[in-house]
Amino acid sequence: MHVMIVGAAGMLGRKLALHLAQEGAVERLDLVDVVRPEGVAGAAEALVADIAAPGEAERLVARRPDLIFHLAAVVSGEAEADFEKGYRINLDGTRRLLEAVRREGERAPYRPRLVYASSIAVFGTPFPKRIGDTFFSTPRTSYGTQKAIGELLLADYARRGFLDGIGLRLPTVCIRPGTPNRAASGFFSNILREPLAGREAVLPVDEGVRHWHASPRAAVGFLVHAATLDLRLLEGRPNLTMPGLSATVAEQIAALRRVAGEGAVRLIRREPDPVIAAIVAGWPERFDAARAGRLGFKADASFDAIIEAHVEDELGGCLP
Amino acid sequence: MHVMIVGAAGMLGRKLALHLAQEGAVERLDLVDVVRPEGVAGAAEALVADIAAPGEAERLVARRPDLIFHLAAVVSGEAEADFEKGYRINLDGTRRLLEAVRREGERAPYRPRLVYASSIAVFGTPFPKRIGDTFFSTPRTSYGTQKAIGELLLADYARRGFLDGIGLRLPTVCIRPGTPNRAASGFFSNILREPLAGREAVLPVDEGVRHWHASPRAAVGFLVHAATLDLRLLEGRPNLTMPGLSATVAEQIAALRRVAGEGAVRLIRREPDPVIAAIVAGWPERFDAARAGRLGFKADASFDAIIEAHVEDELGGCLP
Repeated sequence: MHVMIVGAAGMLGRKLALHLAQEGAVERLDLVDVVRPEGVAGAAEALVADIAAPGEAERLVARRPDLIFHLAAVVSGEAEADFEKGYRINLDGTRRLLEAVRREGERAPYRPRLVYASSIAVFGTPFPKRIGDTFFSTPRTSYGTQKAIGELLLADYARRGFLDGIGLRLPTVCIRPGTPNRAASGFFSNILREPLAGREAVLPVDEGVRHWHASPRAAVGFLVHAATLDLRLLEGRPNLTMPGLSATVAEQIAALRRVAGEGAVRLIRREPDPVIAAIVAGWPERFDAARAGRLGFKADASFDAIIEAHVEDELGGCLP
Repeated sequence: MHVMIVGAAGMLGRKLALHLAQEGAVERLDLVDVVRPEGVAGAAEALVADIAAPGEAERLVARRPDLIFHLAAVVSGEAEADFEKGYRINLDGTRRLLEAVRREGERAPYRPRLVYASSIAVFGTPFPKRIGDTFFSTPRTSYGTQKAIGELLLADYARRGFLDGIGLRLPTVCIRPGTPNRAASGFFSNILREPLAGREAVLPVDEGVRHWHASPRAAVGFLVHAATLDLRLLEGRPNLTMPGLSATVAEQIAALRRVAGEGAVRLIRREPDPVIAAIVAGWPERFDAARAGRLGFKADASFDAIIEAHVEDELGGCLP
């Protein structure tokens, strides 16, 4: 099996590459990103490419991977700040990748599986209490618009038989490893990751704020499951809302207390930020991801489990 | 008021142009199409342009119309038969038009209203009994995919303030004037239009087939209403399923009998066509277009009224 990860230098791409390298079923692993993907092991090959640039997607697809994970994207905040860049990478990049696959198949039979990372940002307010599997996409950001367009393109290219496509609307990944970033969603991870490492974190919103989460492990699990799923089960609707854990900030903090004690909780500093609160108020709280559940995609069991997995994967099993 | 109709040579474009020319509120009327729009009256100017070709949309938008009707599209059958052409006209053409507006606004303040003709083809099977206003878009054709993408782009460009956008998902237009065409949906019109003119027509499906219709008058009415609607009422969800008349073929024929008598009905020849029956089985039957209704969009009152309007508009009020 020859696998290509486009967007391999991102958090999820790195974790997926590591998982695939350890699993051993992958004979060839192409790690593609605009910056050189680091820490490449074994059979993996690092490739620097911008899929939005003319000819680049063709060059990659000419390697004829059996399975392509398309994770490359400009994130929400950047796509909102730089209109043209967001459309160039998230829309044109995705379309060029799909077109490269179609054209490669014109030269000689070729029909790879393409797993597309979409996002719950395809949904926009107002929401029902639980967002069901047939709820419409009315994104309130350019990023969400670009992801929704990517889903439509994926579905049409799959329907036409140019590729075997599946799109996964990923929940917010929590706990995101690394350092605090300036994304509006950053605090969901910061208030757990930082105290777990003995550092202070800022909570800019009310504890009643509810959101839809998946751990990095769960997210990698979704991608891997999508890689082998019988796609006939999708019945021509290949884009799926992934299951997640709906939790309030208070529930996150309660889990932190159970796993790491009151000392960790005391490191969370309340600093209300009305700008962040307003952004977050427009985000979905809860989905009924019944279809994905039936298809075998598995959410995290609890926030305690999310925190424990983070301690295991990122902190070598140790609390400060 | 300076109005531009892009796709002015099509059936709806011609009827809209005629309506606007008669109404008198339009000072300047630009009629744009890839073929020269015919029968241009009064203040109207005919312009030949392919909005999908580089620079063409910019050239048009540089005229700075206050109101743009974007009706230009490759139809469903052609977009399915010619993948690249469908994407070029329906996706790239729409995007170039939106981009031209955005860039024109960068040069000097400019924010026209753009009324976009979308389609119920954005929906795909399986359907609920009535398709509600929050049902998702999972098109089963490339045309439907391209229209759904156009809707997403329109919404994002409107949200960003580059234009005032509204998208209308038009029902199947019935009775389509002209001659029988080879579109799979053609029979819905043929079985009324042809007998009304004393000619035979072929019915390829069962009389129980139900579909969602609007007369050319109603469709022009939607476009005109969208041109002056207070867009704040759209609350950031600018794409609307238009109201229509849900009718079975039997109900269409019963209306024909009432308006034109048994002699007309006898001109309908049953010739079952399993290919057309299979295509039509994938089409929506009925919508709950509550939002559009609340916003003042009006469907036809009955199929009798649709037939009577056709006799008035296309046959000079006379039956054979």
